[in-house]
Amino acid sequence: MSMIDPEADLEISGYRWVPGFAQGFVRDLRPRWACEEAGIPYRERLANVADKPAWLVEGQPWAQIPIMRDGDLTLFESGATLLHLGERSDALLPADPQARADAISWLFAAFNTVEPPIFEHGNISLFAKDEEWAKLRRPSLEEFLGKRLAPLERRLAAQDWLGDSFTIADIAMVTTLRALGGSRVMEDHPAVTAYVARGEDRPGFRQAMADHLAAFARHPDNKD
Amino acid sequence: MSMIDPEADLEISGYRWVPGFAQGFVRDLRPRWACEEAGIPYRERLANVADKPAWLVEGQPWAQIPIMRDGDLTLFESGATLLHLGERSDALLPADPQARADAISWLFAAFNTVEPPIFEHGNISLFAKDEEWAKLRRPSLEEFLGKRLAPLERRLAAQDWLGDSFTIADIAMVTTLRALGGSRVMEDHPAVTAYVARGEDRPGFRQAMADHLAAFARHPDNKD
Repeated sequence: MSMIDPEADLEISGYRWVPGFAQGFVRDLRPRWACEEAGIPYRERLANVADKPAWLVEGQPWAQIPIMRDGDLTLFESGATLLHLGERSDALLPADPQARADAISWLFAAFNTVEPPIFEHGNISLFAKDEEWAKLRRPSLEEFLGKRLAPLERRLAAQDWLGDSFTIADIAMVTTLRALGGSRVMEDHPAVTAYVARGEDRPGFRQAMADHLAAFARHPDNKD
Repeated sequence: MSMIDPEADLEISGYRWVPGFAQGFVRDLRPRWACEEAGIPYRERLANVADKPAWLVEGQPWAQIPIMRDGDLTLFESGATLLHLGERSDALLPADPQARADAISWLFAAFNTVEPPIFEHGNISLFAKDEEWAKLRRPSLEEFLGKRLAPLERRLAAQDWLGDSFTIADIAMVTTLRALGGSRVMEDHPAVTAYVARGEDRPGFRQAMADHLAAFARHPDNKD
């Protein structure tokens, strides 16, 4: 059941439409998924990506999605939205102090240790793929990515999630790793691949993705 | 006055020595600085970078510095250590809910929006500087970095810190931006440059840097 509720106190911003390569990857997916896991209702606020509204341009330093509002409170950066939702629900962030510290450590690991080279991989695979430098960069970047994924491969061969239970760290890590889907790097890491598939198979992920994509379907090619 | 105290409950790990290019930039600097700002005593645990000890290899997925211990609690990733220390002190993370949400939003912005292209800039400027791809990549990366720094330039031309007061977000952002020191990108952003200098001029930063460097001085070229 979708947690979208136009009357909800919590607001998550997204785009009404994005080009095909970005559909399924805009970062409103993260807080949407967290809301589904925790059963927290939220309303949507959708921006035109080609003509960004004042609330997005003025409300977020880089005019990036998502901004989140919770009552009078405003946050930005998907990591901050995950942490905020985690603090609202034991289903996302355990109460036990060490389990909570582990989840927050892995949350930052997803955003600062794992995702930076994945951003670079996305750039050489998509936006800059025809550039000479991007072709020359690929071997050393793939080697570096292998080093970043190796500890995850070992850990996730032995357990389903990063900690003893599913947390916001898994929402961050699965959505981060998804961007490598179909790449040679992922093929070399079967336990990481299976972990991403486990995340994507959760009912909360499926609902969040359906809602994330529904807005785009209502505005094909950004037309009203 | 240094907050280092061998009897402290809080432990921050660092290296006993690193090569010159890394001195002043290992990420134990972040929690050290936070401890100085908040007046929280800490003890050091120093690792040999060339022969990493079991506690680092087994205690951190990528055997990276820092690991932090607080009593029985263990954390890793410098972002997680900053958040943990922020939760211990109003001097690092304000109690007002919106000011706290702003600081946490900017904390994640430092780690996930600003630092990834700075990692890439460090790579093409240092480790890969003689590679053909690195030379070809520089113009587009500098353009991208300009877009990432532009909102900071506007904001920091009008105020001293990211929020109304100095917080963990400034510790994260200043230490992130320092890595661009002396680059063309920084020269083009005088307000960002002045912000980094303001951070580096704080007594807490100076003490943390002195203590960060002192271990290296005791073990020149990693010799006992």
